[in-house]
Amino acid sequence: MAQSRSRKRKKRKSSFKAGHLPGSVTYSGEPTGRDVVLRGLRYAPDVFEERELAGADEIAEFLQQDGTKWISLDGLSNTTLLEEIGRRLLFHPLLLEDIANTTQRTKLEEDEDRLFVFMRDFERNPDTQSLDDSQLTIALGEGFVFTFCEQEPSEFQTVRERLRSGQGLARANGADYLLYRLLDILVDQYFVALDELGSRLDALQSQVMESPNSREILQDLFDTRHELLGLRSSIMPLRDVLSALERRESGLIHPATRAYLRDVYDHALHVAESIDTLRELDSATLEVYLSRLSLRQNDVMRVLTVISTIFLPLTFLAGIWGMNFLHMPELRWTYGYLAALGVMAIAVAVMITYFKKRNWL
Amino acid sequence: MAQSRSRKRKKRKSSFKAGHLPGSVTYSGEPTGRDVVLRGLRYAPDVFEERELAGADEIAEFLQQDGTKWISLDGLSNTTLLEEIGRRLLFHPLLLEDIANTTQRTKLEEDEDRLFVFMRDFERNPDTQSLDDSQLTIALGEGFVFTFCEQEPSEFQTVRERLRSGQGLARANGADYLLYRLLDILVDQYFVALDELGSRLDALQSQVMESPNSREILQDLFDTRHELLGLRSSIMPLRDVLSALERRESGLIHPATRAYLRDVYDHALHVAESIDTLRELDSATLEVYLSRLSLRQNDVMRVLTVISTIFLPLTFLAGIWGMNFLHMPELRWTYGYLAALGVMAIAVAVMITYFKKRNWL
Amino acid sequence: MAQSRSRKRKKRKSSFKAGHLPGSVTYSGEPTGRDVVLRGLRYAPDVFEERELAGADEIAEFLQQDGTKWISLDGLSNTTLLEEIGRRLLFHPLLLEDIANTTQRTKLEEDEDRLFVFMRDFERNPDTQSLDDSQLTIALGEGFVFTFCEQEPSEFQTVRERLRSGQGLARANGADYLLYRLLDILVDQYFVALDELGSRLDALQSQVMESPNSREILQDLFDTRHELLGLRSSIMPLRDVLSALERRESGLIHPATRAYLRDVYDHALHVAESIDTLRELDSATLEVYLSRLSLRQNDVMRVLTVISTIFLPLTFLAGIWGMNFLHMPELRWTYGYLAALGVMAIAVAVMITYFKKRNWL
Amino acid sequence: MAQSRSRKRKKRKSSFKAGHLPGSVTYSGEPTGRDVVLRGLRYAPDVFEERELAGADEIAEFLQQDGTKWISLDGLSNTTLLEEIGRRLLFHPLLLEDIANTTQRTKLEEDEDRLFVFMRDFERNPDTQSLDDSQLTIALGEGFVFTFCEQEPSEFQTVRERLRSGQGLARANGADYLLYRLLDILVDQYFVALDELGSRLDALQSQVMESPNSREILQDLFDTRHELLGLRSSIMPLRDVLSALERRESGLIHPATRAYLRDVYDHALHVAESIDTLRELDSATLEVYLSRLSLRQNDVMRVLTVISTIFLPLTFLAGIWGMNFLHMPELRWTYGYLAALGVMAIAVAVMITYFKKRNWL
Amino acid sequence: MAQSRSRKRKKRKSSFKAGHLPGSVTYSGEPTGRDVVLRGLRYAPDVFEERELAGADEIAEFLQQDGTKWISLDGLSNTTLLEEIGRRLLFHPLLLEDIANTTQRTKLEEDEDRLFVFMRDFERNPDTQSLDDSQLTIALGEGFVFTFCEQEPSEFQTVRERLRSGQGLARANGADYLLYRLLDILVDQYFVALDELGSRLDALQSQVMESPNSREILQDLFDTRHELLGLRSSIMPLRDVLSALERRESGLIHPATRAYLRDVYDHALHVAESIDTLRELDSATLEVYLSRLSLRQNDVMRVLTVISTIFLPLTFLAGIWGMNFLHMPELRWTYGYLAALGVMAIAVAVMITYFKKRNWL
Repeated sequence: MAQSRSRKRKKRKSSFKAGHLPGSVTYSGEPTGRDVVLRGLRYAPDVFEERELAGADEIAEFLQQDGTKWISLDGLSNTTLLEEIGRRLLFHPLLLEDIANTTQRTKLEEDEDRLFVFMRDFERNPDTQSLDDSQLTIALGEGFVFTFCEQEPSEFQTVRERLRSGQGLARANGADYLLYRLLDILVDQYFVALDELGSRLDALQSQVMESPNSREILQDLFDTRHELLGLRSSIMPLRDVLSALERRESGLIHPATRAYLRDVYDHALHVAESIDTLRELDSATLEVYLSRLSLRQNDVMRVLTVISTIFLPLTFLAGIWGMNFLHMPELRWTYGYLAALGVMAIAVAVMITYFKKRNWL
Repeated sequence: MAQSRSRKRKKRKSSFKAGHLPGSVTYSGEPTGRDVVLRGLRYAPDVFEERELAGADEIAEFLQQDGTKWISLDGLSNTTLLEEIGRRLLFHPLLLEDIANTTQRTKLEEDEDRLFVFMRDFERNPDTQSLDDSQLTIALGEGFVFTFCEQEPSEFQTVRERLRSGQGLARANGADYLLYRLLDILVDQYFVALDELGSRLDALQSQVMESPNSREILQDLFDTRHELLGLRSSIMPLRDVLSALERRESGLIHPATRAYLRDVYDHALHVAESIDTLRELDSATLEVYLSRLSLRQNDVMRVLTVISTIFLPLTFLAGIWGMNFLHMPELRWTYGYLAALGVMAIAVAVMITYFKKRNWL
Repeated sequence: MAQSRSRKRKKRKSSFKAGHLPGSVTYSGEPTGRDVVLRGLRYAPDVFEERELAGADEIAEFLQQDGTKWISLDGLSNTTLLEEIGRRLLFHPLLLEDIANTTQRTKLEEDEDRLFVFMRDFERNPDTQSLDDSQLTIALGEGFVFTFCEQEPSEFQTVRERLRSGQGLARANGADYLLYRLLDILVDQYFVALDELGSRLDALQSQVMESPNSREILQDLFDTRHELLGLRSSIMPLRDVLSALERRESGLIHPATRAYLRDVYDHALHVAESIDTLRELDSATLEVYLSRLSLRQNDVMRVLTVISTIFLPLTFLAGIWGMNFLHMPELRWTYGYLAALGVMAIAVAVMITYFKKRNWL
Repeated sequence: MAQSRSRKRKKRKSSFKAGHLPGSVTYSGEPTGRDVVLRGLRYAPDVFEERELAGADEIAEFLQQDGTKWISLDGLSNTTLLEEIGRRLLFHPLLLEDIANTTQRTKLEEDEDRLFVFMRDFERNPDTQSLDDSQLTIALGEGFVFTFCEQEPSEFQTVRERLRSGQGLARANGADYLLYRLLDILVDQYFVALDELGSRLDALQSQVMESPNSREILQDLFDTRHELLGLRSSIMPLRDVLSALERRESGLIHPATRAYLRDVYDHALHVAESIDTLRELDSATLEVYLSRLSLRQNDVMRVLTVISTIFLPLTFLAGIWGMNFLHMPELRWTYGYLAALGVMAIAVAVMITYFKKRNWL
Repeated sequence: MAQSRSRKRKKRKSSFKAGHLPGSVTYSGEPTGRDVVLRGLRYAPDVFEERELAGADEIAEFLQQDGTKWISLDGLSNTTLLEEIGRRLLFHPLLLEDIANTTQRTKLEEDEDRLFVFMRDFERNPDTQSLDDSQLTIALGEGFVFTFCEQEPSEFQTVRERLRSGQGLARANGADYLLYRLLDILVDQYFVALDELGSRLDALQSQVMESPNSREILQDLFDTRHELLGLRSSIMPLRDVLSALERRESGLIHPATRAYLRDVYDHALHVAESIDTLRELDSATLEVYLSRLSLRQNDVMRVLTVISTIFLPLTFLAGIWGMNFLHMPELRWTYGYLAALGVMAIAVAVMITYFKKRNWL
């Protein structure tokens, strides 16, 4: 788990590389070994077609057909294919470059007659228990949506299912509504991630209350905050993108869909607020953790002080009567030893009374 | 009390369950053993009718009548009934699914000609002294309000009373005004909850000032903050819902009612501000608690230092004269012992003067 | 002082009482023993009349007359009188209930043709040196202002004076201007309260810098913050009320008066900002207080460490030569004792050099 | 320096004095011993006149002339003169009272045909190195600006210079532009003050890093924060005044000048933001200071622990062999003493290894 | 690295120098020894010309030509040239003064028919690893952009490249689009700077977790925060400048370009948010650092307490039996010594059991 996190952190550093020729399509992710999958899906109220597409030419021909088209490219490592698509669909080279860049910032770009949403998809990795994020671009054109993903979110499958069955997501709605559905699903991923972080924090809280000394707590609290800040710095620009999408005067988005986008925007706002709530819980847990450390230290100090305060004077008294002066009359008394022990007992009694009064024992 | 809290926390985890078929109505709460109660209430300036309803058909027929109708379903465990109602009233399956989901987020949904407010109701549990929240949905349609609750808030009864008596809430107002009344009552519940938390904080403050060492304080402060954050993350989306209700162009809400909704919105704002005030009080109390711990630790350290500083040198002196060197002339002096004690007394006097000067004694 | 504060805190708890019949006028304050005073004041550019009013009938008759009328009810314990007034002036029973409730939240209510401002008046109690707040309601109607107070603010007297003399507050202005004047005076009370808290904080700051160990400081800082939060949670809704008053389309408030209300609103904003400034000062003072505790603890620890580090090795050396082995040649040396003392002196010198280097002495 | 600060704090308390007859002009500052200077300046594109004015009559006559007039009163102690001016220029008595009150809050007042900006001028006192603030009022009327200052800001002189030379500030602009210039200069004073505080903080930062133990740092950090809060609570209302000036529909301010006022408003915003930045630096410096104290305390504790842990067991061992039991065979061994020293050396070696492993040495 | 930072801090102090004649052009930077380079670049869809310009006359003549002109002055030390340019192009003397002032605040100024953006350029210094900022002014006039830099940002070169090749940045766009491109590049520099700071923070986090005792961490965390605050106080006014540019009604900026400026404004907003995220990470890292110090101190204290609590009583016991009383019967017992050692062993066992129970061992 720690490894996966440090890997993620390192990735961040590389988002601005110098000496990079502008307009060149370079895949900046790690090689995945998975095949690139290119699929087309076409629907209208009474039409539904799904097929694999072989290349840019088939895409172009597919887009000519009636109905709403959803083309999805799962895997970004085939840059030749990407460039070919770009040429056929007349994507601006800079946009193509951004699509292939796996560390792209979340943003909204507008081509002459297309909208591009660059964003990140959060998926929980079942192996490492960590949140993995990957690059995802959604292009909205007249009558079609084109999604480019490093790895297609599993939730996209449910959208396909519903389109297949014709229920839920009415096939009557156009490409802008499909864009909304996909954005909605992607924003919902944040809630899943927050739920996961929320329950991790709950577990940490119990742990703090029970065994405050284990020091993994500190690391875990810090990691949680790190992930929360990561989610936050990712939802913030997404929120702006959604707000811009809703407000932008574009023929691509029907007024009726605007209300739905407003809804996703509201969800993004709620995500941001939930993140803040969790951050506060994280802070509060750290505070309590530190408070318990303080309490514990107080205990330790009290024990040390009580012990020292009792035994230092006693040891001194023993030292006195261990001195080798010739003329120490009490040493020769018959009950001198007993008297000495008595004096020490009284000293102890005084100390203990004092500590009792001070509420230290 | 601690148990009820941890139960609540665990509940939170389950709000996003994987492998859940979309559009299926599943009751996600715990079985309550209570019967599901379905009631209809109908009023107009000179009409008042109240009756139990047997099923979806009776509801449909009841809604045909004149006047403002309030149908309330108390208990969500009967999913068969819910589905039947959904089919008869043409509720969207996804909305029905949300109604039955007891961990639904607060939100506003709009059907073709109906508004749905999904929210949470806070009720103080007299047994556990904790705040219990339950799922509550209010649907507003043309001429009727339909409330779906896990357990109907007791305050709804006072609304029924007033409608019965015809005073206070004028029967002349329509369904939108009834929606306002119910929302107003539900927001007022937050004030009750805040009052409870406020007095708990007051008690904790006194406790901190009097006996700062008890460590339940830490747990209690943390629990209070947890509940405040819970209330906050619940009022925030509600505030947005109320603001949207007030602003939304909907034929269901008369312009005159808008001003009332603005009022509830203002209350929600006040709730949010009061929560922030209480959170600050909570933080301040924690700070004072930690400060008192610090003060106490300071005391402990001072005692330790004074004792050590007095007795370590004395013990050393005693150690000197306890050495077994053959040639230690002072050991043979007649008043050597007295002189030694005198030296020690002077050392003590010097120390004490020093501490007095430093204000440590 | 501490007593008066805890009394105030307790009062807060009772603002939501269960089992309270709606619409019934109940005085929720403590019996004051003072008489209820009902006064009428009437003015126009060339008219000025002031008189005691005996009951609801006289009020009704008084309101019939020309000019601007100001009726003030000083004391809320006579609920019979209140109910009588309510009936005569056609106040809504719920409003009347709110007027008599001494723990009413600050809010603005609108009757058919009247505005009601429910707020709190802060007055400095010369006996306890604490801030006392009391319930105050101002009703604005066509041509009249009606004030209901637990105890009339002393500053209202200056308004009467000016109306009497005809200067300052031009008698030409109507009831809405009188409302503005009263609100202005009440908001100014916050500045007085803030000045008082500001100078208390100044005194605490000096105290912290001079004698950081007195522990009343902690209590005082906390009490100050408590009062600041109290003022804040009271000015916040008042700010909203003032903003609503200024914006609301009401025939009762002339456009010219709106600018004045904007002014009071600005004052309320300034109060809120000043409160935040003082809260920061309070926090800063607490931080400095804790820092000084830390510094002091550092001093204590340093002394302890220096003493221990010097005397523990010395005592050990003395212990060595106090051992009773038969064959310890140095014990028989002529200058063994001197040599031992010399070794100890060197040890001390080494220690002290070390501490000097570390800057601990 | 400390004295000047405490003087300033005391001044704050007196801003609300009870028993003050409204409308009476009272100078609330300390007597300065300086003469009151009354100057008139008149300009138009081709006119420039500057002269001393003797009294209210001369002012009135001076204002009759053509061109833009700037009358400045330097010194507020001559209340007779102020009253005379007020009568001649028909200033409202309450405004005149505010002009003479040296603890007036920053605000904007509007007379029938005049605007009054009440604000504070910050000037760095070269003697005490502290920031002194003084009362300053600028009245804008048709064709003239009237400034009332406790002590005229030195920067006003540069405005006079430029008007004299006719360059920079075009003489063609009217009184509203002159108001803008004066406000601009006064807001720039804040930047000067912030620069001063910024470099003081820089110095404190270096000091914290180098010699964290000097305790003036705490006082200085606190004083800096105090001054920052002072500047902040002064710029905040000024910001509102500037915003109101820009937005207010007043014939006195030409639309062209509005853009300039917007500029000053922007500057005020920047001042507010810079103050917040400096406050954060101040907080950060305090945090680092406390962190270094903690680090230092950690060092001290480690030394104490190492010393105690080494010498307490050794001393115990020496004590063992210093016991006076008759039958302690090892005391009679030939190499008993050496063996004892050996045991002690081994104990020390074990301890030191342990500390090395724990990274404490 | 530390040196470069302290140099930067000192620079800040000089931004407000007294006794500076207004309107005089003075270069306030340090002499760089580099030559001043003056270049002209002219383009239109089918035109591209690039040449060195010798002086103000050539500039004036160059500006007469067709197409969009970009004149860049790299190096501000030649004030004679600057004054010459100012005279020829009729720049206001005050603006010229601001251009040459290397500590100018970020702001937007408007001449009659030109816009001036004064801002700072952040560039990473490869030698010192620190962020260097330098003064940069962009003037936008009818058909031309004039950039004045202390040192031209290296990224400007890529704009030139693209204009040369005619791709990417369409030559068809005018001067306002060029302004946008330059601003975009300059804002992107902030992201580069933030990436650098982000990875530095990542490194610090790992360091804190692994070896929390190194005290450079504190200095590094503080320096990072300092640089973040520096970036923040620089992006904030830039954000306002960009917002003003977008909103301002100016014939110089075509409506189409406004959308692009909105984009840069969004980037500036994201920069501000990212800075806040990094500041929180910095704070969190400091908190964890301090928490680890606390944990460590807890460890140290526990060791000290355990050692003291075990050996102080033992030493006391040894002291008892080291006393020289004549009548101490146990000293003469045959197994007295063994018994004493046994008693001590039992004492140790008791202590260790106690510590084990308290979880301290």
